[in-house]
Amino acid sequence: MGDDLTLEDVRDLAEGAALLGTGGGGDPYIGRMLVERQLRAGRRIHVIGVDELPDDALVLPSAMMGAPTVFVEKLPSGDGNLAALRALERHLGRSAAATMPIECGGLNSMMPLLLAAQADLPVVDADGMGRAFPELQMETFAVYGVPGSPMSIASDHGDVGIVEAVDNRRMEHLARALTIQMGGAAYICDYPMDAATVRRTAIPGTLTLARRLGATLRRARQEHADPFAALSATLADTIYTHSRVLFAGKVIDVDRRTVDGFARGRVTLADAADDGDTLEIVFQNEHLVARRGGRVLAIVPDLICTLNSETGTPVTTEALSYGQRLTVFAISTPPIMRTPEALEVFGPAAFGLHEPYTPVEDLNQPARRRPRQGQMA
Amino acid sequence: MGDDLTLEDVRDLAEGAALLGTGGGGDPYIGRMLVERQLRAGRRIHVIGVDELPDDALVLPSAMMGAPTVFVEKLPSGDGNLAALRALERHLGRSAAATMPIECGGLNSMMPLLLAAQADLPVVDADGMGRAFPELQMETFAVYGVPGSPMSIASDHGDVGIVEAVDNRRMEHLARALTIQMGGAAYICDYPMDAATVRRTAIPGTLTLARRLGATLRRARQEHADPFAALSATLADTIYTHSRVLFAGKVIDVDRRTVDGFARGRVTLADAADDGDTLEIVFQNEHLVARRGGRVLAIVPDLICTLNSETGTPVTTEALSYGQRLTVFAISTPPIMRTPEALEVFGPAAFGLHEPYTPVEDLNQPARRRPRQGQMA
Repeated sequence: MGDDLTLEDVRDLAEGAALLGTGGGGDPYIGRMLVERQLRAGRRIHVIGVDELPDDALVLPSAMMGAPTVFVEKLPSGDGNLAALRALERHLGRSAAATMPIECGGLNSMMPLLLAAQADLPVVDADGMGRAFPELQMETFAVYGVPGSPMSIASDHGDVGIVEAVDNRRMEHLARALTIQMGGAAYICDYPMDAATVRRTAIPGTLTLARRLGATLRRARQEHADPFAALSATLADTIYTHSRVLFAGKVIDVDRRTVDGFARGRVTLADAADDGDTLEIVFQNEHLVARRGGRVLAIVPDLICTLNSETGTPVTTEALSYGQRLTVFAISTPPIMRTPEALEVFGPAAFGLHEPYTPVEDLNQPARRRPRQGQMA
Repeated sequence: MGDDLTLEDVRDLAEGAALLGTGGGGDPYIGRMLVERQLRAGRRIHVIGVDELPDDALVLPSAMMGAPTVFVEKLPSGDGNLAALRALERHLGRSAAATMPIECGGLNSMMPLLLAAQADLPVVDADGMGRAFPELQMETFAVYGVPGSPMSIASDHGDVGIVEAVDNRRMEHLARALTIQMGGAAYICDYPMDAATVRRTAIPGTLTLARRLGATLRRARQEHADPFAALSATLADTIYTHSRVLFAGKVIDVDRRTVDGFARGRVTLADAADDGDTLEIVFQNEHLVARRGGRVLAIVPDLICTLNSETGTPVTTEALSYGQRLTVFAISTPPIMRTPEALEVFGPAAFGLHEPYTPVEDLNQPARRRPRQGQMA
């Protein structure tokens, strides 16, 4: 990017990030409202590449933690965002040179932009998963040896905490407990690291990619083009090479609870022909696995996205509701997310799923029209 | 005291503190084992009066937080005790001149002694309630305007947290959530203050009082004297003026659960004559109210103590069990704990009790033998 973000950039970025958020990462409308308010107040948001900082510059990633179902019921004011940054700076005795997202998501790609405006810091064009995951240890930073703590956590009411955990999983548990006590939503700064470490461990270019994907959807709508074909065309020359429509249908059931600080549940879609063909997606904030008639079509860490079938607008898990017409769109996760070390941290087993990880492109060979019962082969 | 504590001092102090702990404050055996190990290793514990420090000396009180039921199932190693001190010192950018108990209790009068040995610091002879209470905001420090945070919290496993809350009640909620995640037991340092503030807000002399009460019980046992009469004689010339036996009987029911990070429940005693006369005590870590046939005999913040009827040994709420022969002994709380401001923080309503606070000496006028049914008045 290089230049300061415009209002249109922010809207595109929020929508594209919601797509990469794979059902999670928070509502894109809330995210962009917080950021647009800053731009309208005359503040600027400058995005820089991972190579633009000196090796020893301190980067403090930022995000919101909690169940996305809570964010839409109790809108975040954004006040705790700056408090979290200042608390971690004080604790470390150093000032941040930049902030960065830890994940892609409608809200969580926006929080670092908000912080950039609030604190007049640049935002690094990268993140720690190139999608969204529900737990703090599920980061490429963690996979490649970066401790997540010391981390800071703040509420909108002025409460602040610092967590120094023995490992990133303990950090998740301790911070989750604080988040629940803070009302189910909190602002965090975690994985403090220098720019050299960002270059070694982050997924580069995800803010740019999100903005491109959002722009793709916007243009497809303007041109009345197929949004899914347009997305696949944009993705093909990125590190998210493979993408495809897995299913198109109507939501016939949503089972969603806010438990343990997460939005957990499942959504079931029936196909338009209503011939008994259904697809079920299990989620924990984010979509984890899509099964059609019991057969896995896509599984974490590959991206499973639920989009409005007509407009391509991403629908996050907290917004799923009966009767929606959705297209389930799968995207292959970048290679850095598919290594054995990475799969140990955020592969299917990390979510209690029994199926092994199989790349989405292997699960879905090039489309062949399968014969219907009664038809000739 | 003035001199370093001896092994006998520590044993007396643990038992006397368990009495003042009014059913809570943790098991005295675990507490003194941790401290005795330090003394046997050659470390010293020096107790100083509240007047012995310069006004601006930093005092960092220390304690264990959690449900006493957990402490007896998973013995604390004491490792997190020093970690909590160091974390708060680092956060404040200052070294402690002394530590101090926040409450009296079999375990929680011992933790500052343990810390004194671990860190080679003196312990101030005072505390923040002159008894035990279950929640962190229930301190004379809080009543008289001292913020409890920044506070530190540490587990035995190396996890450390800092909480800076907007008020002392929010501090309690946030620290309780961390304690539960740390396994139901954690080490804390809270209410950082200077010595001048300690002098203004603390209950003075509680370590000395605990040691005297423990010595009183020890001597009564040696001399085969009535332990309850001996305790009343010792208490009469202290700020805990009134004390009396409320009931003697046998435990016929204990209902105790470890919920929300507390040991909550009730114990019912039947009198020895077995004529249907029962006394019920409701507790949340500590005993809150004693009712005989529905009539209140003592209520927080007055002290309700359950003691072995033969030996006078305090029995903490986590150790209550069916068939124990117990004497319920009530002690008036010091005047500083009975002001309207104090009762607002730890009076009956703070525990959801509907009865008003009435001093124990008013609830129990000098004993008159009441006529039994069928006897002439």
